[in-house]
Amino acid sequence: MDPTDTISKTEENDLSVALENVVLGPDGQPLSKKALKKLEKEKEKLLLKQRRAAELAAEKAAKESSQVDYAASNYGYSPMNQSTEKTNTEWLSIRDLANATVGSSVIVQARVQTSRPTGARMCFLVLRDGTYTVQSLVIANKDTISKQMVKFADNIPAESLVKIVAKVVKPDEPVKSCTISELELHIDTIFVVSKATETIPFSMEDATRPQTEFIKDPTLVKVNLDTRLDNRVIDLRTTTNNAIFKIQAAVCRLFREFLDKREFIEIHSPKIISAASEGGANVFKVSYFKKSAYLAQSPQFYKQMCIAADFGKVYEIAPVFRAEDSNTHRHMTEYIGLDLEMSFKEHYHEVMYLIGELFIHIFSNLEKQYSHEIEIINRQYPFEPLKFTDKPLKLDFKDAVSLLREAGVEMGDHDDLSTANERILGKIVREKYDTDFYMLDKFPLAVRPFYTMPDPNNPGYSNSYDFFLRGEEIMSGAQRIHDSNFLEERVKSCGVDPETVRDYINAFKYGCSPHAGGGVGLERVIMLYLNLGNIRRTSLFPRDPRRLDP
Amino acid sequence: MDPTDTISKTEENDLSVALENVVLGPDGQPLSKKALKKLEKEKEKLLLKQRRAAELAAEKAAKESSQVDYAASNYGYSPMNQSTEKTNTEWLSIRDLANATVGSSVIVQARVQTSRPTGARMCFLVLRDGTYTVQSLVIANKDTISKQMVKFADNIPAESLVKIVAKVVKPDEPVKSCTISELELHIDTIFVVSKATETIPFSMEDATRPQTEFIKDPTLVKVNLDTRLDNRVIDLRTTTNNAIFKIQAAVCRLFREFLDKREFIEIHSPKIISAASEGGANVFKVSYFKKSAYLAQSPQFYKQMCIAADFGKVYEIAPVFRAEDSNTHRHMTEYIGLDLEMSFKEHYHEVMYLIGELFIHIFSNLEKQYSHEIEIINRQYPFEPLKFTDKPLKLDFKDAVSLLREAGVEMGDHDDLSTANERILGKIVREKYDTDFYMLDKFPLAVRPFYTMPDPNNPGYSNSYDFFLRGEEIMSGAQRIHDSNFLEERVKSCGVDPETVRDYINAFKYGCSPHAGGGVGLERVIMLYLNLGNIRRTSLFPRDPRRLDP
Repeated sequence: MDPTDTISKTEENDLSVALENVVLGPDGQPLSKKALKKLEKEKEKLLLKQRRAAELAAEKAAKESSQVDYAASNYGYSPMNQSTEKTNTEWLSIRDLANATVGSSVIVQARVQTSRPTGARMCFLVLRDGTYTVQSLVIANKDTISKQMVKFADNIPAESLVKIVAKVVKPDEPVKSCTISELELHIDTIFVVSKATETIPFSMEDATRPQTEFIKDPTLVKVNLDTRLDNRVIDLRTTTNNAIFKIQAAVCRLFREFLDKREFIEIHSPKIISAASEGGANVFKVSYFKKSAYLAQSPQFYKQMCIAADFGKVYEIAPVFRAEDSNTHRHMTEYIGLDLEMSFKEHYHEVMYLIGELFIHIFSNLEKQYSHEIEIINRQYPFEPLKFTDKPLKLDFKDAVSLLREAGVEMGDHDDLSTANERILGKIVREKYDTDFYMLDKFPLAVRPFYTMPDPNNPGYSNSYDFFLRGEEIMSGAQRIHDSNFLEERVKSCGVDPETVRDYINAFKYGCSPHAGGGVGLERVIMLYLNLGNIRRTSLFPRDPRRLDP
Repeated sequence: MDPTDTISKTEENDLSVALENVVLGPDGQPLSKKALKKLEKEKEKLLLKQRRAAELAAEKAAKESSQVDYAASNYGYSPMNQSTEKTNTEWLSIRDLANATVGSSVIVQARVQTSRPTGARMCFLVLRDGTYTVQSLVIANKDTISKQMVKFADNIPAESLVKIVAKVVKPDEPVKSCTISELELHIDTIFVVSKATETIPFSMEDATRPQTEFIKDPTLVKVNLDTRLDNRVIDLRTTTNNAIFKIQAAVCRLFREFLDKREFIEIHSPKIISAASEGGANVFKVSYFKKSAYLAQSPQFYKQMCIAADFGKVYEIAPVFRAEDSNTHRHMTEYIGLDLEMSFKEHYHEVMYLIGELFIHIFSNLEKQYSHEIEIINRQYPFEPLKFTDKPLKLDFKDAVSLLREAGVEMGDHDDLSTANERILGKIVREKYDTDFYMLDKFPLAVRPFYTMPDPNNPGYSNSYDFFLRGEEIMSGAQRIHDSNFLEERVKSCGVDPETVRDYINAFKYGCSPHAGGGVGLERVIMLYLNLGNIRRTSLFPRDPRRLDP
């Protein structure tokens, strides 16, 4: 029996549910702070109890295995690896097991996700490596695997890292609970490479539980987001999180792949800057030796300087800092910006359509190359596959206003889109054009920054665009004003003092190609693509006004 | 005649040389601040004089061209591009001219780098686009190109952007001063797309002058580094700088390409952190709402957390911040770190050799794929091609000490390498092994941080390594301690209070694979590879204790 089972699952669940769904007590009223503290204390006690039980069991197992044991050399704790051996061993990852021959012997290193004994002679382990899991059995026999060895395996603390030698076996029935379902492993030797010395704050099973199961059974243990983020190193181990961050890396790779092919140059612009852009609102201040400096809110000025310096086409993937005190599902104080800027010869649509195709390149290749990861994430957080067209759909702002008015929304011609109206528009466009992704062109001039190029043919409008995914904005961009005199004129008519942006204006005094660009929030794209509901799930170690740790 | 020629080149040079080599007056004594200011003022006056002369000449030209001119429709100023046309014009870049057919007509957009008239009927322009230049001629004829048009072309302010239609012609002799030497362009029409409205602070010729020419003629105008950095948007336009930043982008691309193929996952770790690592020295402080935070000096803790979270192999390319008041040729307060971390099965050499091969992948592909850029940079900053071996050379620290002692250097077995000794060692290794790149393994434990894994077979040494390029360190790495108990032990014996690194120690309590990694400074690699002598030349907008602008 699992030693932690001495505490009933129900007891733990009750506590956890109360703790996690922090708002309501048994009377349906929100719990007081004191009551919450008491609950936390009880939970701590419970954990301590669990830990003690586990330690006792381990000690007992150790004693037993010190008796004469014919399997003694087939299990145990490896000494800490200090790089003393080079044996040319062929290791197999659990993923590659799918191609292993039934009957062959393999060497695998993986985490013990769970262990479950069935009697004294057999023990089931679920082993995990990244986004892959496999069922593994230790079955006692008369000469190589003893009951002590079975017990040892069963008592390995969850999340310890083990090295096993095992035979590849076809199970009687597919193992549905594991990602490798057509094969299982029968363990010959098992050594703990790195032991989890503390009981983990939540189990991987709880942390990976599909959202749909809570609908069926609301009493199931739910690991809430703050608990996850407080223990991020454990939380990131779930197959779901491993998959989310593979998708994140893939989006960056596909972004660069598309742009590298088109001869963009990757740049690295400074993040510590001397002047707070746009009047100093929402900017983090830095002590810089005896002076003050600020953290860059956007690489835009630098991207444009690179265009003025004849780099032609540039992109940057880098952190962006916003000192906004917003505590919402979609704001962070530090996020990764995917920024690009490109000089063009005739029309900013050269740039806008290129960015549109860039997104379609990303979406279609995620589907093609990352179906395994998407499936893993889908198990826990189900979502509808993204609908998108082969060529990016473009609508004009005017059309959007008409569509919204047809749907009963009241708005002025030159009003900006509210978040609510963006959502409504997303639904209308999806129904009408069968796509979750589209580009909205020609925004009203008044709702865009001073550096936006006005549309000469449509007074009151501008050569600017936003891109939308599932009804939320993921990118904002425009043709920028490349003529310093005209820029100064626009600065003044927007009521900005030209002296506050003198360096910016001056950068265009030495001739500059017409250019356009845009900026994308990496985490937001991933949140919307995977429909994860909270941007913190798409950031390794998210930062918001209240969170700076870990 | 060039209108700016009304001021003698010598006059300008004398002033410039005095200003740039700021230290000495005509008496060989350092100039007083007052004298310097006076010089600056004179320089300003001179620039004003030049500008006025240019304006007058332009006006005169404009007047002349307003007379009946049969070429009037073939030149002039284009209106500011506001994206009104989509003509499907086929534009050619200067680079692609190399493959153009002699006699064909091409459309090109480029900068006017210089213009030089020869009489009233002909004008030579050097046109530039990125790292490519081509000679272009406007030659008056009887029906399509007038003398006014020649004059107009000659008077286009340097660095203006023009669009031309031209015929591809084989010149009588190769044009050595341009990168496209086997072809030249005979211009049919020329329009200024974006005019340089201010005279540039230094000419592209001065800014691109080969270092070797100053040896032959020390009176030549030299643009010093601070002047360059103050006017970085102009400075970055030189073919040399365009090439340097293509190399920079290439290093990042090759780094990722190598690691992506080996299934590394790209990560993005936070740059705003709650606690100052390593006691708070050299850390920038940030105001974070009502609290204080710090800028990350290294992603190491986060890379290791990702290993503990089963990401297996990770890398990050991101800014790193160091509040060190060092004003040297090789220190910046913000630079780009190429960081990687990898779990291994048996021996940290799996990681060390992988990093060694990574560098060789980068060096050899730079040579293969960027020979044009390297040649461009070499013209201005000559350097010997890097010598490196097919397989990375590995030396042990002990061997290095022996080699240094043989060369007469006195040092203890466990002393760290001084910068001077690194250089000497670089020379010895180059002579003995014919390579500028090598790995130094097994550093003394005492000179490495507490998290470094000791070498169990060689007391006093550790499983750590530095990599060297042309005698300077470019990467530092090690096997890290993955066992929390042992880590705590080492923390204590290094005299560090474990409570100050509690979170770090705790991250390894839940089992962690053995792992190793390292961190590379992007700009330092490029400075040494290209032998540029100052790290600021390899950063778009460098930051040091004294420089926060632009």
